[in-house]
Amino acid sequence: MKNILIIGCGLLGSSLLRRISKKKIAKKIFIYEKSKSNIAKIKKLKLPGIIVKSLKDGVLNSDLIIFCTPMSEYKKLIIKINNFISSKTLITDIGSSKIETSKIIKKFLKKGIHWIQSHPITGSEVSGPEHGKDNIFDNKWCIIIKEKNTTKSNLNILSKFWKKVGSKVVIMTVEKHDKIFSITSHLPHLIAYNLVKSAQDFEKKQSYPLMKFSAGGLRDFSRIAASNEIMWRDIFFNNKNNISKAIDLFIKNLNEFKKDINARNNKSILKKLIKTKKVRSKIIRLKQDIDKPDFGRN
Amino acid sequence: MKNILIIGCGLLGSSLLRRISKKKIAKKIFIYEKSKSNIAKIKKLKLPGIIVKSLKDGVLNSDLIIFCTPMSEYKKLIIKINNFISSKTLITDIGSSKIETSKIIKKFLKKGIHWIQSHPITGSEVSGPEHGKDNIFDNKWCIIIKEKNTTKSNLNILSKFWKKVGSKVVIMTVEKHDKIFSITSHLPHLIAYNLVKSAQDFEKKQSYPLMKFSAGGLRDFSRIAASNEIMWRDIFFNNKNNISKAIDLFIKNLNEFKKDINARNNKSILKKLIKTKKVRSKIIRLKQDIDKPDFGRN
Repeated sequence: MKNILIIGCGLLGSSLLRRISKKKIAKKIFIYEKSKSNIAKIKKLKLPGIIVKSLKDGVLNSDLIIFCTPMSEYKKLIIKINNFISSKTLITDIGSSKIETSKIIKKFLKKGIHWIQSHPITGSEVSGPEHGKDNIFDNKWCIIIKEKNTTKSNLNILSKFWKKVGSKVVIMTVEKHDKIFSITSHLPHLIAYNLVKSAQDFEKKQSYPLMKFSAGGLRDFSRIAASNEIMWRDIFFNNKNNISKAIDLFIKNLNEFKKDINARNNKSILKKLIKTKKVRSKIIRLKQDIDKPDFGRN
Repeated sequence: MKNILIIGCGLLGSSLLRRISKKKIAKKIFIYEKSKSNIAKIKKLKLPGIIVKSLKDGVLNSDLIIFCTPMSEYKKLIIKINNFISSKTLITDIGSSKIETSKIIKKFLKKGIHWIQSHPITGSEVSGPEHGKDNIFDNKWCIIIKEKNTTKSNLNILSKFWKKVGSKVVIMTVEKHDKIFSITSHLPHLIAYNLVKSAQDFEKKQSYPLMKFSAGGLRDFSRIAASNEIMWRDIFFNNKNNISKAIDLFIKNLNEFKKDINARNNKSILKKLIKTKKVRSKIIRLKQDIDKPDFGRN
């Protein structure tokens, strides 16, 4: 890898920047960032890399382009870079849902240009380049999306890149990716937002000081519900079919729990509560557990 | 306080035992425990206190009795201790819901005996005396329940006790307690169980390796869903009216989120996602936040 362009230098963009620089993964790192406030932060923090004012300068001089903006920015950026991108340049992104992005790429990206989607499973409820860390990809999964037109050589280049970044690579289709993460990540985040919303509604109605007593569960949901709203709106919209199905399954199960509780159905509720315990043993066995819960944060 | 009897020496009972002994809060500490496995653990760990074989011995010699068993054990135990308890002995408990316990006490406890309910806001997804710690009450809220017949002097005795244990005391009615904790603790736990249940159902249907990719949210819900099933069944059953209302509010809000997502209602969803962020600032302002989420665990 000679030169890399990072488009959007927030939490993950700046983490990549730090890591690529530290491990000397590229000769030059270019940064394209439209937020003046983020540029000021990058300069103040003396982060590595060259801030380019024109997207063209970054694109023309890079072998790999990594989209680290909210997914809703992709279309606009694709239309811009179509004017000067060469087929030698590989594009990837770090978006959390894939089907919709795949459609946008197919519809808008100039023919002959290679874009292989990536999804490193990491993040934080805090945003911005000041919160980035060079080690947030370490030993985390990075999903690489394989589509019909994905070439083996580009897949190799990208796999090698993410391994250098510290991730463990796994290859998947867009459909499988969006299904799996609708359950393991998108629904949990929506549920957290929804729980906090419900607590707010309750507090407003009852005027009880709820948050003071939030340590028994609510507090930690509130952490997830503080995640970046643009990023999560994009995920919810882009993966709406899978998330919608996940919501239906969740509500169906919750209504069954309610029925069991109201009927004091001892046998049925104990069976459920015992069965869910097994998931935890499985997660521990798969070495996916950590000392303290962090919702995929670092 | 001269002597204290702890009935049920699991996670919280043994934590109290350790703390009372360490801080010399009582002259003698008696332990009544029906599980042979727990007794063996207590002996092996050389925990302080005197294990009594008969409940009578413990009750007759104690000034304070603390029920640390699952709430579904209270009725049976009350009927037993009625035979020998004196009105000089104060009883408390550490149950997580209060209305139902209040009814059981009123119905079954011998007249003239004082029972003031307590609820220390702490716990863990692990159970048993081997997991207890002397510091798990430090700076945590302990709710003390005030009812019509609660005397000021007993309230003072109990407040002093919990403060010595390390808790911050707050006094509340049963109704207010059960409403607040239905939202801040009971619903979050039910939601966690329900999310894990939904993930299991999905995994079974799709045969996708979900748990491997659980780091993005699901993993940390699985931790809560590994909590003791008897304790949580008791809470869900005992606070069913409030929990049932909380479920309805939660489902109503979740359906509205679904509607916004399916309609790609940008304005409405951003409003919600931004508003929920404010709860987190509030929790931080109230000093209820910690470095890493722990769902009220230590």
